[in-house]
Amino acid sequence: MITLYSLAPSGNAQKVRMALRFLGLVFEEVQLTGGAHKRPPFTDLKPLGQVPVLVDDEVVLRDSQAILVYLAAAYRPGEWDGYDAAERGRIAHWLSLAADEIAQGPNRLRLAALFGVTIDPIAAAARTKRALDLVERQLEASGWLEGGRLTIADLACAPYLALRPQGGVDLGAYSNVRAWTARVAALPGFPVMTGWGA
Amino acid sequence: MITLYSLAPSGNAQKVRMALRFLGLVFEEVQLTGGAHKRPPFTDLKPLGQVPVLVDDEVVLRDSQAILVYLAAAYRPGEWDGYDAAERGRIAHWLSLAADEIAQGPNRLRLAALFGVTIDPIAAAARTKRALDLVERQLEASGWLEGGRLTIADLACAPYLALRPQGGVDLGAYSNVRAWTARVAALPGFPVMTGWGA
Repeated sequence: MITLYSLAPSGNAQKVRMALRFLGLVFEEVQLTGGAHKRPPFTDLKPLGQVPVLVDDEVVLRDSQAILVYLAAAYRPGEWDGYDAAERGRIAHWLSLAADEIAQGPNRLRLAALFGVTIDPIAAAARTKRALDLVERQLEASGWLEGGRLTIADLACAPYLALRPQGGVDLGAYSNVRAWTARVAALPGFPVMTGWGA
Repeated sequence: MITLYSLAPSGNAQKVRMALRFLGLVFEEVQLTGGAHKRPPFTDLKPLGQVPVLVDDEVVLRDSQAILVYLAAAYRPGEWDGYDAAERGRIAHWLSLAADEIAQGPNRLRLAALFGVTIDPIAAAARTKRALDLVERQLEASGWLEGGRLTIADLACAPYLALRPQGGVDLGAYSNVRAWTARVAALPGFPVMTGWGA
């Protein structure tokens, strides 16, 4: 029995939702509304009060990148998380980018625009540009971030880059990024999400 | 042939240096000084101009968390990166904390104090406290972050928490954190680092 605790507009929840759908797993999604994610009992599962949290029988995991690592290891080892040490390392690099530049860049701009969160817009815009430049260049080779196939690197990085227009970021000249987010959205089972640009 | 490109005061470089020493691997360390890490040819290896970068024969990896994932998979699979999917996921959670709360918290405070980098000190102090509270509680069980043994979770999280006095953060009442950073520093091969508190 798999349960995903989420918030509908969360790009972090979307990472996990995509993984579960692409894996064809049956799961229940519990949307936490009205600030429930900042109160017990949810905060017992997740001390920082952030979504998503995944419960898979006895396994309880917080942090979208960590959940992707778990789902890959449990249900699609090798293909999704790397067939050898070098690939595992390269995929982990994109997970860090998702936890760092992308979380501090396009995610913050979107939080400010949609929810009025106070941010440093200059720093967030600079981080967004760095992340986009890096991803745009990387996609040149095969259209996927690593290994010429969908991996958890794509699942971790795509949502907040696809949702960047909601943060006031023009889609711009990033044609590889646009083709890639459209490619992800065309995969069977993709969970439709408001604001997912291409 | 393993080469680590580093800066002496970098806590991120220290993560990798510790891993290489604890693994007993022979490696060359190239210290980038005088801004060399922001110029070619180094920026060809590492577009964002950040250290560390590891070169292991044909494998070139940037990002300290990604390098730890690589080294674990290549040289200490299971023991350092998790014996099963649930452990892999839990360890990945701490890697995200290192890339997010710890990078934005104690690391930023230290950058401001040592190098005059402009930061938001209130936000960085709040993130530092959150990270310390979480790690302090987690260490209660076994003295290590996951699995009752040293893993890459500890290698990723310990440096900037151990170096926090350099950012003006009192060691405070975090006795589990102090015992843990001392435990890491007592491991055979630990590379001595200025400022590593206990």
